[in-house]
Amino acid sequence: MTTLYPNFSFDIHKKDAFSDARLGTIYTPHGKVKTPAFIFCATKGAIKCATIRDVKEAGTQIILSNTYHMLLQPGAEIVRSLGGLHKFLGWDGPMLTDSGGFQIFSLGHGSVAAEVKGRRKNTRPKTLLSITEEGALFKSYLDGKKHMLTPELSIKTQHDLGPDIAVVLDECTPFHVDKSYTARSLNLSHRWALRSLSAFKKINNGSQALYGISQGGIYPDLRKITAEFLNEQPFFGQAVGGSLGATSEQMSEVIAMAMEPLRKDRPVHLLGIGSYKDIFEGVARGIDTFDCVHPTRLARHGGALVLPYLFGKDSINLKNAQYKLDTNPILENCCCHACQNHSRAYIHHMLKAKELVAIQLLTIHNIAFMNNLMFSIREAIASDKLKNLKNKWFNT
Amino acid sequence: MTTLYPNFSFDIHKKDAFSDARLGTIYTPHGKVKTPAFIFCATKGAIKCATIRDVKEAGTQIILSNTYHMLLQPGAEIVRSLGGLHKFLGWDGPMLTDSGGFQIFSLGHGSVAAEVKGRRKNTRPKTLLSITEEGALFKSYLDGKKHMLTPELSIKTQHDLGPDIAVVLDECTPFHVDKSYTARSLNLSHRWALRSLSAFKKINNGSQALYGISQGGIYPDLRKITAEFLNEQPFFGQAVGGSLGATSEQMSEVIAMAMEPLRKDRPVHLLGIGSYKDIFEGVARGIDTFDCVHPTRLARHGGALVLPYLFGKDSINLKNAQYKLDTNPILENCCCHACQNHSRAYIHHMLKAKELVAIQLLTIHNIAFMNNLMFSIREAIASDKLKNLKNKWFNT
Repeated sequence: MTTLYPNFSFDIHKKDAFSDARLGTIYTPHGKVKTPAFIFCATKGAIKCATIRDVKEAGTQIILSNTYHMLLQPGAEIVRSLGGLHKFLGWDGPMLTDSGGFQIFSLGHGSVAAEVKGRRKNTRPKTLLSITEEGALFKSYLDGKKHMLTPELSIKTQHDLGPDIAVVLDECTPFHVDKSYTARSLNLSHRWALRSLSAFKKINNGSQALYGISQGGIYPDLRKITAEFLNEQPFFGQAVGGSLGATSEQMSEVIAMAMEPLRKDRPVHLLGIGSYKDIFEGVARGIDTFDCVHPTRLARHGGALVLPYLFGKDSINLKNAQYKLDTNPILENCCCHACQNHSRAYIHHMLKAKELVAIQLLTIHNIAFMNNLMFSIREAIASDKLKNLKNKWFNT
Repeated sequence: MTTLYPNFSFDIHKKDAFSDARLGTIYTPHGKVKTPAFIFCATKGAIKCATIRDVKEAGTQIILSNTYHMLLQPGAEIVRSLGGLHKFLGWDGPMLTDSGGFQIFSLGHGSVAAEVKGRRKNTRPKTLLSITEEGALFKSYLDGKKHMLTPELSIKTQHDLGPDIAVVLDECTPFHVDKSYTARSLNLSHRWALRSLSAFKKINNGSQALYGISQGGIYPDLRKITAEFLNEQPFFGQAVGGSLGATSEQMSEVIAMAMEPLRKDRPVHLLGIGSYKDIFEGVARGIDTFDCVHPTRLARHGGALVLPYLFGKDSINLKNAQYKLDTNPILENCCCHACQNHSRAYIHHMLKAKELVAIQLLTIHNIAFMNNLMFSIREAIASDKLKNLKNKWFNT
């Protein structure tokens, strides 16, 4: 492993006394990530409605970009010829790309994320044409052109994009499939993971680290099989993927069964999860990093993240008339640019006037809020107060 | 005058040897404005697609907000109750509001700006219902409600909004009206100006300065009459308003005839003008400040301001395919956030992906560009090189 990832390491500084939570640092060629950490989504090459300066100044450690989107527009070759994602985005910190699989399968099954996460009915046209041993054949959401994404192409694409952390291609099984499908899919994903590793070894120059993905859906024995596979392969870290169940409670159980058999010396990422409750649950299970579009998407709908123990809810919507004359910042004591310079009333009126600055300010706040939450969690682990922090947040 | 504007002054540091250009400083309760300067438009309470931090860091000295828009949404009383425009916008520098008249009359005659400026045919529904001695009756563009804007209400509204510089209400005559209409309008506007002054004197607490407006359209004798009126009244400064003709050439002539008879010890603002050529023309005629939505509007269409002597045009459009692989910044040597961190190719691809960051970056660049242009003009006046700078910019 030292030869495969000469410029990476993961240190665990402290383990929580009351849970599997741990305080760590991921070292990458573009700097370190103190964990637990939140990864913000620059899906198509930008954090929506924020300049990279805004993102940095809101305390962000690490961002990700989606291979699927970059592959289709502008194309990985173009990003490479422009110097790679870091240069392209103007971001000099740690960065991750996913494999491209999640979007292919979630769009492919008819909606982004909803079906894989088991939540909504299909509403969008299906773009996934077929899954074969070779890879996944899909139609571009932009122009309908057919593309075949193989494990090798995903690795090549992520190599061209040049993030610090790359992820293997897997089949993201939808929620509704049964155990035998999940088991077949797990085996396919494992064969793809080996092909990914093989392609990675050939192409890597020390600038990237590769994550495997835990498969197995909601089935404990399959989660154990996938953990044994991951534990033996020379991945730098792993992501918990596959179906996590239909509810927050089920997800918590699935994460527990996925994490329990995994080796503890590698960083673990939880894909696409971002609610406070799920983050606290995940941290307590040993998850080191999270990503989700929720903070930035919420901002685009007028929502600001707030402290549930003060507000009785996770967010407030500044469109509401109650903020018309409210001279308070979104959140008292928040040090973000929005809270330091503007009132709720200002954001309310700018939302009404359809001035984009409202979305920009909410985006900045929500990014800063998530970074502050993760900071609080790290501080709590450091002082063995994680349980107290969780109790405070949820009034339990 | 010292009693009316105790916290304001205008110093002229140097007059150009070859034109009427001058280097000055306007001192306001919120700091100074080095002139000639460009004023950026926070029309509805925000510079479109820029946070106030972006605006500041792009070197902006002064911004304006439009009384017409603020009057209708959220309303001047609300802005006052929230602490005034400075606090509302999070801007602690000098600020101007217009009287509200321009939008009433330009929207009223069927289009924003186009008709007053003599350019386009009417295309929008007319919202100006009548002009009487009392004021202008108009329908809100938001909900159709009737409003009567009088000189007194404009002053009261601007007092509530609380900018450093307020402007009297005038009738903005359309381009097509004849001389006798223009003369009657001039007299009406002068009576409104006296009522504005009277209302201003009653309400002002030293925190604001009032500008008069030069009327008279394209008629030299009327421009002389209006100058004599303004010269005698205790305005802190004046704006050149009214019809400026149909072409850039005619505008230059009208500005000359408006400026020539005006006293030289007060700052002069040119309303709504922002092309490089017009700015150079205006500066040479003694104009101290300019405002225009052009830099920020251009950004929203993918346009970046560039040096005409390097590019053969005033701006480039980053949507064009030629920028697909262009790793250069928008403008070599530009110190703005966009040029320091991103390539033309990045902005091009983000425009294609409809990522708002492209507009944000172009907005930042265009603001910085205009501020740099005004800085170059001030430097050129200081060193008697204004003519050289103009020749350089236009290859003449």
